[in-house]
Amino acid sequence: MQTTPAALKNKALCAFAHELADIAQPIALQYFRTKLDVLEKQDLSPVTIADRSVEAAMRDRITQMHPDHGIYGEEHGQHGLDRRDIWVIDPIDGTKSFVSGMPTFGTLIAHLRDGAPDLGVIAIPFTGERWTGMAGAPSMFGDSLCKTSGCTSLSKARLYTTSPDIFDAAGLCLFEALSGRAAMRRFGGDCYAYGLLASGHVDAVFEMDLQPYDYMALVPVIEGAGGVITDWQGQALTLASEGRVIAAATPELHREMLGVLASGALDS
Amino acid sequence: MQTTPAALKNKALCAFAHELADIAQPIALQYFRTKLDVLEKQDLSPVTIADRSVEAAMRDRITQMHPDHGIYGEEHGQHGLDRRDIWVIDPIDGTKSFVSGMPTFGTLIAHLRDGAPDLGVIAIPFTGERWTGMAGAPSMFGDSLCKTSGCTSLSKARLYTTSPDIFDAAGLCLFEALSGRAAMRRFGGDCYAYGLLASGHVDAVFEMDLQPYDYMALVPVIEGAGGVITDWQGQALTLASEGRVIAAATPELHREMLGVLASGALDS
Repeated sequence: MQTTPAALKNKALCAFAHELADIAQPIALQYFRTKLDVLEKQDLSPVTIADRSVEAAMRDRITQMHPDHGIYGEEHGQHGLDRRDIWVIDPIDGTKSFVSGMPTFGTLIAHLRDGAPDLGVIAIPFTGERWTGMAGAPSMFGDSLCKTSGCTSLSKARLYTTSPDIFDAAGLCLFEALSGRAAMRRFGGDCYAYGLLASGHVDAVFEMDLQPYDYMALVPVIEGAGGVITDWQGQALTLASEGRVIAAATPELHREMLGVLASGALDS
Repeated sequence: MQTTPAALKNKALCAFAHELADIAQPIALQYFRTKLDVLEKQDLSPVTIADRSVEAAMRDRITQMHPDHGIYGEEHGQHGLDRRDIWVIDPIDGTKSFVSGMPTFGTLIAHLRDGAPDLGVIAIPFTGERWTGMAGAPSMFGDSLCKTSGCTSLSKARLYTTSPDIFDAAGLCLFEALSGRAAMRRFGGDCYAYGLLASGHVDAVFEMDLQPYDYMALVPVIEGAGGVITDWQGQALTLASEGRVIAAATPELHREMLGVLASGALDS
């Protein structure tokens, strides 16, 4: 049992992250599936309003409770990124899901200490499901421990990515190389796919073009469940990463996938 | 208010379809997210067991209550397809979703009278959501009326398909032609996307390689919500259709999409 001052502080921060998720949920759902009669290209107005409203409420609470912490959000920018404690938040992850009524969109909340994510929450407003990860502790799905699958081989892996449209040409080649070796590939996960990876139902996720608020919360959840999540070179994800993310259920699977990427990069 | 004998019969059949969905739900959920440590290629065992168990329970009930009706199911075959009344059922639509823990899989139940679907239920076991369609009546989402969006132009449409992998090369060209003109495209819907279309959150769905048990239940739901669903030639879907499905929120949008398909087919 953790009783050190640091552990108690982490527990308090974890409770606070869930308070932020509690704040986000009703606001997100208030805008979800509101009628939008037609969608103009580039016009994602309901999700934009929901994004901004959710993030503003979360930021207010952070500023109130932790005025000395920095904040990095999707909609209202960054401040205090030179501080030891930073909250990295994505009010609505899965814009296209949200705008088309698909219940897999999520709210992502990460806490960084000295630049490294030590706390992450993946909250799914529609279903009420939540994954929680804390550095040095096992990850939780709701009130239960969660654990990645034991998949050690790409040939047996269920591989997810949100859409082939997130890749550039080189990235798509690498995705094809990976998914061609996988047991199954499926599109359309958003952050939900990473939660399913932490729970052992998905074995790998491969994506690019993510922002820090898209991936920071995933790191403690995946790692605390026994998985590995890095950039495409196998390096730890930081605020400065290029948004290329590979997540795997086991170190063995992660290593195999990095090998495919390395040989794919040589081929192209 | 409908009080003719035919309307009363339809109402009884509708209640029976929901009884079948009630039978399916707990069995499907019993197998959903059960640990499957690794996935062998072609080995979808948990979904196969769930599929068979759900369908067997539904068939038993149909045979008990309507011994003179035919049945067309995914797992246990067809019988009595020469009869006036036929049930077309898909115990688990969205195999890849089911096997990877994604909550958008569904149970599909259709009743055909003289070959035409006059009753359809899209039931989502995990969320408990249900869409119901009956010929000549407005479609329902749970206890509320549902209606497609007013989208009349592909340039403003949210277009779904389950995966680019469902298409052959010619089909993929047509999908690219359609989605290139759409406001948004997203993958990964399974039957859930058609429900969202009936509720006005998605504007169009385009798929191929579907079986009758994949599409029959969708027809009354989409049509009763104001939408149009046909094969790629604009013909009504029957048991003999080739499984190429196009669904749209409005007749105008459907017509525009058929036009794109016609010119796309000429180009190729």
